[in-house]
Amino acid sequence: MRLADSFRSERFGAVRIHELQRVIELDSGSSEALRAVESQMVVVVPCMNETRSVIEGVLSGIPHDCLIVLVSNSDRQPVDRYEIEAQTVEQFCRLAGRSAITVHQRDPGVAAAVKAAGMPELIDDDGLVRAGKGEAMLLGMALAAMTGRQYIGYVDADNYVPGSVHEYCKAYAAGLAQADSPYAMVRISWHSKPKLRDGRLFFSRKGRSSQITNEWLNRFLAEYSGFGTEVIATGNAGEHAMTLALGLKLRIAGGFAVEPYEYMDLFEQFGGVLESTDPDVMASSVPVLQIETRNPHFHDNKGEEHVRGMRMQALNVLYHSPVTLPAVRQSILDFLIEQGALATGQEPPRERTYPPVGTLDLDLLYDALDAEALSFRQPDGLALTGRPPAPPIDRASIPRRVA
Amino acid sequence: MRLADSFRSERFGAVRIHELQRVIELDSGSSEALRAVESQMVVVVPCMNETRSVIEGVLSGIPHDCLIVLVSNSDRQPVDRYEIEAQTVEQFCRLAGRSAITVHQRDPGVAAAVKAAGMPELIDDDGLVRAGKGEAMLLGMALAAMTGRQYIGYVDADNYVPGSVHEYCKAYAAGLAQADSPYAMVRISWHSKPKLRDGRLFFSRKGRSSQITNEWLNRFLAEYSGFGTEVIATGNAGEHAMTLALGLKLRIAGGFAVEPYEYMDLFEQFGGVLESTDPDVMASSVPVLQIETRNPHFHDNKGEEHVRGMRMQALNVLYHSPVTLPAVRQSILDFLIEQGALATGQEPPRERTYPPVGTLDLDLLYDALDAEALSFRQPDGLALTGRPPAPPIDRASIPRRVA
Repeated sequence: MRLADSFRSERFGAVRIHELQRVIELDSGSSEALRAVESQMVVVVPCMNETRSVIEGVLSGIPHDCLIVLVSNSDRQPVDRYEIEAQTVEQFCRLAGRSAITVHQRDPGVAAAVKAAGMPELIDDDGLVRAGKGEAMLLGMALAAMTGRQYIGYVDADNYVPGSVHEYCKAYAAGLAQADSPYAMVRISWHSKPKLRDGRLFFSRKGRSSQITNEWLNRFLAEYSGFGTEVIATGNAGEHAMTLALGLKLRIAGGFAVEPYEYMDLFEQFGGVLESTDPDVMASSVPVLQIETRNPHFHDNKGEEHVRGMRMQALNVLYHSPVTLPAVRQSILDFLIEQGALATGQEPPRERTYPPVGTLDLDLLYDALDAEALSFRQPDGLALTGRPPAPPIDRASIPRRVA
Repeated sequence: MRLADSFRSERFGAVRIHELQRVIELDSGSSEALRAVESQMVVVVPCMNETRSVIEGVLSGIPHDCLIVLVSNSDRQPVDRYEIEAQTVEQFCRLAGRSAITVHQRDPGVAAAVKAAGMPELIDDDGLVRAGKGEAMLLGMALAAMTGRQYIGYVDADNYVPGSVHEYCKAYAAGLAQADSPYAMVRISWHSKPKLRDGRLFFSRKGRSSQITNEWLNRFLAEYSGFGTEVIATGNAGEHAMTLALGLKLRIAGGFAVEPYEYMDLFEQFGGVLESTDPDVMASSVPVLQIETRNPHFHDNKGEEHVRGMRMQALNVLYHSPVTLPAVRQSILDFLIEQGALATGQEPPRERTYPPVGTLDLDLLYDALDAEALSFRQPDGLALTGRPPAPPIDRASIPRRVA
């Protein structure tokens, strides 16, 4: 993949946000640099009730050298959809000579393992891991960390264009290779989203939720710098990747607050406003690359309610951040009241956030998953290709906790 | 790219049609075999009045090592759309460090060159190259032949998903590498086509025209073998590739008859029913690989009239082929009358066909294009990458005519 050069960036403490970069070629003819990243990358696919054929398509788009981790929150009654998903992954691994990890978010054994590893905050009143997307991503990151690989990327399972999944992964690899920093993040802005309008297809350039999230994140920056900016174009990016060295330090928000909160947590931890606990990161800077894909993003329409929810969660996160300046906080309040989302005198709710995955005891997590989580699988299709079987997680070399 | 194995094929003389093969992985992790093919492949893009952004997307999907040839039949009045297209290609070449060829089908200089090279059949009453799609593909093949490369693939310009263009090209390379024959062809069957139905999107598995074309081509085969078959799934495949050694021997039909006629011409020349003039091909066999893509095929809806036209042209070609058995000819007549496409006692019209591109004198073609065709361009973006400029066609080493 060939990316357009990025000449401009905006700095906020150690965080350096690069202007949106376009993809010039999907395949630039030299693949060595990308393969080096891909062979160290885990791609986490949060999945909820997608059809078998959609999942197959998504899997087919993930480059061979990436390790697939499917975290499911699909129904297990009346049909056990997770079993169908796990079989789909297993069959794919067999055909492609790959290995993967699958797990169900609401498996009681997973909850037990998470508790054992030291994050009881993740467990709800039913004694299970909470059902949100952020929680699925957190679990995926913990599994990724256990493999010892260096990078993690996320790809939503509700994607009808395998070629766009492929492009996301290539963009992750190209961005991470270009960033060349132990603490880098790559976030995707899709080129367009096909929508129905007056009975015909229309390729919309902006998402309903992203537009507002980005606008407020940019106001956050402008309030500090005194200069209006549009640099942030990926506030709600479901598709994003980062070095695990960075990921393991990030606090993760629950539900759909997860993506915008990544920006806010970068600003809180490494923005230089609050005292940083991490001189190493502060010394080396945190590049955030934003890449505009070539493919349209073509997924199921989750409805207006879902979009409103995403938008609100982003603003709640921004409102409550200790680094958001008072003027922006007041504007958010005014906006929410004007939108009818809040009564005068009310405050936006706080979104749930979790400690960094780096605080988990991964050895304990693995042992408990292995012993108790019936949904925890490591299908291995490598054996059939004549290579020695190699389960993705090697118990003997799980990295120590980092935080 | 990893393709599923193809275990079954049907033989018709030297032509061996392989069962549809699925794509398992878009990127299988080892790219050497594909790059070897891509660096010998010309990708011809027939183009008519597409927007700049759609063309940019298509170009971005063509792997770096392939040489792009754009053959335009776009309006030049009131706005010269070809100039915009040529600029788009030139800018892309500059950004990507590539070279390309562009030409306009209705350029009087192109007509003069075609006449000089020995194919006056291609010229219409206005003294210009005929306006059909088959004619654009023929021109593209002649240009491809002049480059001395070994493979040619076609990609339609009206494609909204750059990732699918990318997949087509990878499928060509994977198929041609797998076929490993001097006379091979790869034809694409798209996975699905998104359509509007009752105000929602529906992923249709079969094209309106393809279904009927394939059915009749299979009846053609079944009439010989006595066994019903569904082996042909790509009768109307606009997306296909082949070795130039094969392509230069094929007669090419005009308009939209071009794609089904490729099958018929294979059967006529190499089917063993008529005496072959080409013992070399007969001895080495002609594999036709059919590949089902992962991506949906997402293009502009050209309307019912266009589809009906394509269907009719396919049946006309089949009806008039000297190798179609009488029972099939009679059934086609009955079908066309039943459909109201033909009155009782009428015969289907004959589609126009041209001699093989291998009969052209390529030296004369090049010299006349160079001297007279104002639209003939060879943008070269290689120079900017520090490599020596290398126009795609080297006058001194244009291959001799082969037929």
